[in-house]
Amino acid sequence: MLQPIGDRVIVKVKEEEEKTVGGIVLASNAKQKPTEGEVVAVGEGNYAENGSKIPMTVKEGDVVLYDKYSGTDVKYDGEKYLVLHEKDILAIVK
Amino acid sequence: MLQPIGDRVIVKVKEEEEKTVGGIVLASNAKQKPTEGEVVAVGEGNYAENGSKIPMTVKEGDVVLYDKYSGTDVKYDGEKYLVLHEKDILAIVK
Amino acid sequence: MLQPIGDRVIVKVKEEEEKTVGGIVLASNAKQKPTEGEVVAVGEGNYAENGSKIPMTVKEGDVVLYDKYSGTDVKYDGEKYLVLHEKDILAIVK
Amino acid sequence: MLQPIGDRVIVKVKEEEEKTVGGIVLASNAKQKPTEGEVVAVGEGNYAENGSKIPMTVKEGDVVLYDKYSGTDVKYDGEKYLVLHEKDILAIVK
Amino acid sequence: MLQPIGDRVIVKVKEEEEKTVGGIVLASNAKQKPTEGEVVAVGEGNYAENGSKIPMTVKEGDVVLYDKYSGTDVKYDGEKYLVLHEKDILAIVK
Amino acid sequence: MLQPIGDRVIVKVKEEEEKTVGGIVLASNAKQKPTEGEVVAVGEGNYAENGSKIPMTVKEGDVVLYDKYSGTDVKYDGEKYLVLHEKDILAIVK
Amino acid sequence: MLQPIGDRVIVKVKEEEEKTVGGIVLASNAKQKPTEGEVVAVGEGNYAENGSKIPMTVKEGDVVLYDKYSGTDVKYDGEKYLVLHEKDILAIVK
Repeated sequence: MLQPIGDRVIVKVKEEEEKTVGGIVLASNAKQKPTEGEVVAVGEGNYAENGSKIPMTVKEGDVVLYDKYSGTDVKYDGEKYLVLHEKDILAIVK
Repeated sequence: MLQPIGDRVIVKVKEEEEKTVGGIVLASNAKQKPTEGEVVAVGEGNYAENGSKIPMTVKEGDVVLYDKYSGTDVKYDGEKYLVLHEKDILAIVK
Repeated sequence: MLQPIGDRVIVKVKEEEEKTVGGIVLASNAKQKPTEGEVVAVGEGNYAENGSKIPMTVKEGDVVLYDKYSGTDVKYDGEKYLVLHEKDILAIVK
Repeated sequence: MLQPIGDRVIVKVKEEEEKTVGGIVLASNAKQKPTEGEVVAVGEGNYAENGSKIPMTVKEGDVVLYDKYSGTDVKYDGEKYLVLHEKDILAIVK
Repeated sequence: MLQPIGDRVIVKVKEEEEKTVGGIVLASNAKQKPTEGEVVAVGEGNYAENGSKIPMTVKEGDVVLYDKYSGTDVKYDGEKYLVLHEKDILAIVK
Repeated sequence: MLQPIGDRVIVKVKEEEEKTVGGIVLASNAKQKPTEGEVVAVGEGNYAENGSKIPMTVKEGDVVLYDKYSGTDVKYDGEKYLVLHEKDILAIVK
Repeated sequence: MLQPIGDRVIVKVKEEEEKTVGGIVLASNAKQKPTEGEVVAVGEGNYAENGSKIPMTVKEGDVVLYDKYSGTDVKYDGEKYLVLHEKDILAIVK
């Protein structure tokens, strides 16, 4: 399990379904980088300058939209994740 | 539904009406990027450094003006939206 | 009507009078961008980091001086305005 | 009259005396940009992040030294002024 | 022993196991820089602007993920370490 | 007299003694810019974001070391001074 | 004696021992810039934005590690020192 630091959020990127032709999976080179994913872990939040902790808005299980240039890709336990600061998440899909 | 994070606001961009010639809709390539739109969702606001939440000024339904280079385009449910930080909105049209 | 966001101010730019020759209005291409205008709308002010609202100094009707590279031009209802942050206004002309 | 905004100060630039030859005023092209001037108007000061107003140090009538690259030149009522942030003033000449 | 300053953390980088062919250790030139390591020392934390100390989240013994471009390499007592600001750690592996 | 603004300090630069050859003063072109000087005036200090004034550490008469690229040269009353922010002073020579 | 300003620390750089061949000291041009040194003086610390003084972590006599690109070299009384902000010190060697 990964426990993100500060205001970070770990997102399991939603793989686009591959198109298949006659049962053969075609890996599309032109596939756009996904920008939607499911939150799998949430940090404890940053500290404000008065020493209080700023609560997080997103929570585990939320589906979120993010800009395709945000975050850091990490590979863990054979899976690909994206680690994002919460402030780089655009919106929660409800 | 999209719930924006922090001080973000989601705007439904006001499509300029297409000019038609004899009933045929002409897609103008030269159309300027719109800078007016209707707010469809509003974040809960950012936190100040004393840990208090800064209230948002705009609200759902407001028509707002913004600089044409502001924000991030998102596509959701077949519709195009713009996600903006409230501080990048110039004014509310009343 | 336009209601500016945060510490923004909307200024009606003072058009320089056109020189006329024999009654014909000459549009001067070389006209300097104006740097004086009348405030037509004032935002509610930004929030300080302790959560309090910082009061605005300028008010509707003030004539203000600003640097010619400041602000964003907006067109609204056939009129041209300049949207400025109050901190980019140099002085109030009294 | 000009009332500067925030921590701005308006300075009447001290014109260097022109050298004259036989009563003819010589406009020197090589004159260095002046860096000394008299304060003619003072803003009310900026707000600190706790919402209090930071008092100004300079006052009307002070002669001040400033770096020759500081501030914005404005022309008002036929006179040339320099608008400076107080923090760009180096020292008061006493 | 090294005692990191402020919000710094010292990480013992996890060496990737060398592949061997017939018992000969092959030093891979193409080995990716490791991005996982064990925390061996933790600073006391930074001070917030209200003068209070911000507590650290990671602790000695934690295995952490970090971006491969973060931190400063130091050699101490024949061992290689990475000195990172806690905010540059992505997540704790639990 | 010069009264520096904010956290500024005015330093009388220590002239290196000229080498003389047979009584003739040689102006060395290669003289390094001095980095030591005596404080002749001290500002009242900056304001912190809580509105309190931050006290100055250096005082008139202190000999200080500074980086040769710091500060602004000013000429006043025929003398050369350096105006520095206190935070650009490295150390007081005691 | 040098008294550093703010959060600065003065470090006596640890000279690497010269290699000698047959008693002749060889000055190595390729010697790496040292990154370890002994603290000989410590500033009183910076002020936080609430006006309180932030205590220093390092103290006189501490041996510290720093990045080879940090700080300013000063020469004083025939000795070479490095003046560093405490935040640029990586760790105390204990």
